Amino acid sequence: MSILNNIRVVLCNTSHNGNIGSAARAMKTMGISDLWLVSPQVLPDDHSRALSCNAYDVLENAKIVNSLDDALSDTTLSFATTARRREFSEQLFTPRESASEILQTITNGEKIALVFGAEKTGLSIEEVEKCNRLLTIPGNPEYFSLNLANAVQIVCYEIYSNYDSNLSKFKNNEIEKATYQDNQGIIAQLEHVLKQINYGKNINQTMRNLQHIVNKANLERNEVDLVRGILRNIEKIILNNYCSKIKQ
Amino acid sequence: MSILNNIRVVLCNTSHNGNIGSAARAMKTMGISDLWLVSPQVLPDDHSRALSCNAYDVLENAKIVNSLDDALSDTTLSFATTARRREFSEQLFTPRESASEILQTITNGEKIALVFGAEKTGLSIEEVEKCNRLLTIPGNPEYFSLNLANAVQIVCYEIYSNYDSNLSKFKNNEIEKATYQDNQGIIAQLEHVLKQINYGKNINQTMRNLQHIVNKANLERNEVDLVRGILRNIEKIILNNYCSKIKQ
Repeated sequence: MSILNNIRVVLCNTSHNGNIGSAARAMKTMGISDLWLVSPQVLPDDHSRALSCNAYDVLENAKIVNSLDDALSDTTLSFATTARRREFSEQLFTPRESASEILQTITNGEKIALVFGAEKTGLSIEEVEKCNRLLTIPGNPEYFSLNLANAVQIVCYEIYSNYDSNLSKFKNNEIEKATYQDNQGIIAQLEHVLKQINYGKNINQTMRNLQHIVNKANLERNEVDLVRGILRNIEKIILNNYCSKIKQ
Repeated sequence: MSILNNIRVVLCNTSHNGNIGSAARAMKTMGISDLWLVSPQVLPDDHSRALSCNAYDVLENAKIVNSLDDALSDTTLSFATTARRREFSEQLFTPRESASEILQTITNGEKIALVFGAEKTGLSIEEVEKCNRLLTIPGNPEYFSLNLANAVQIVCYEIYSNYDSNLSKFKNNEIEKATYQDNQGIIAQLEHVLKQINYGKNINQTMRNLQHIVNKANLERNEVDLVRGILRNIEKIILNNYCSKIKQ
């Protein structure tokens, strides 16, 4: 069982059923599935299902309760989210700052809650006071109109990113990278071509610039082969032409 | 003027007008406002405006163009986003890994593009190949059905988070980066040389591979001049030799 199952998303007094579906989808894309609805103003319906984009399991297993106390009851750590940063005297944390505490807690087998308020009003002071931490998402101070499901998306993404910081599985292991020696092979061949074509300017500086480009390009082995093949063709043609001139 | 104005969000072939509105809202919450629509299947309408939640300015200033080339033309760095991680042989970066490169680039006054494909299909291979980097958002490998606007939200959030915590860290420098158009100049000239030397193998595939290398190298303007100067010399010598052969 994934430790992400110890994460609970709690939506309080949600007023749009579409947002419940979109939140379910946002959660599931980040491997999180435990959804609780505290006194929702609407119940999940077909519109929620449509917007959940097949995250039906999250919707169907959602627990509906009457109070935030019920939703927090067995958690050891809870995070109230807010966009109203000046209204509370508590310390504000960003999702990123909280990620490591969240991961430690769920790794211990404890449950944590991420609590989101109603679309228009956010969480009340009383709701915020029930939680252990106050979270705020960084954003444009002049326009902070984050959609509920997008706020859920960002917090879940932040946790997932830290959970899955071993990104090796995104890396394509099939790629064979060029070694230093491979790159030097290109450089030597380039220098040879430049001399063949009497590229007259400061050759050492030119070679340094070319070296810089090759280094930056972070080539793969087969790209080295491609470049060297092209250079070989150029060398051959230049050489043949010179030879045929000399013969005459 | 905020350096975030140097960030362009490019939506290709978007099929739902609601998503255009939601993307505008997602951008604006993170201080990003330059929206480009490449061949949208639908145009922004009242539904887009409703979902933009007052981010009307972003929608009204959105530029509609016919090709991705137009949208990338004056950018120096572009990021294709994909969820199809195994389909491309290029190295994949996460938004977080890319954030510092993005911030450095926009701090220099250069434009960057974040490119998103159509809802159902994502970006085509041809579209991905026009970009410098390939981005993927970490998420549940068993259910990765990230809504378009939520993908925009996460990438913009990641940039904003790093921007906000690094405001003083990035210093401007004098380096002038190559634009997309500069790089295309190299590609066109390379193709000309390959034809001159009768580089017989599959020329289209070769050009794609070369495009990939040029994109990865993230060239500076003076490096473009260097490479094009060398190519001009090679062209001239090959041409002269052929001419002198013909004369004989």
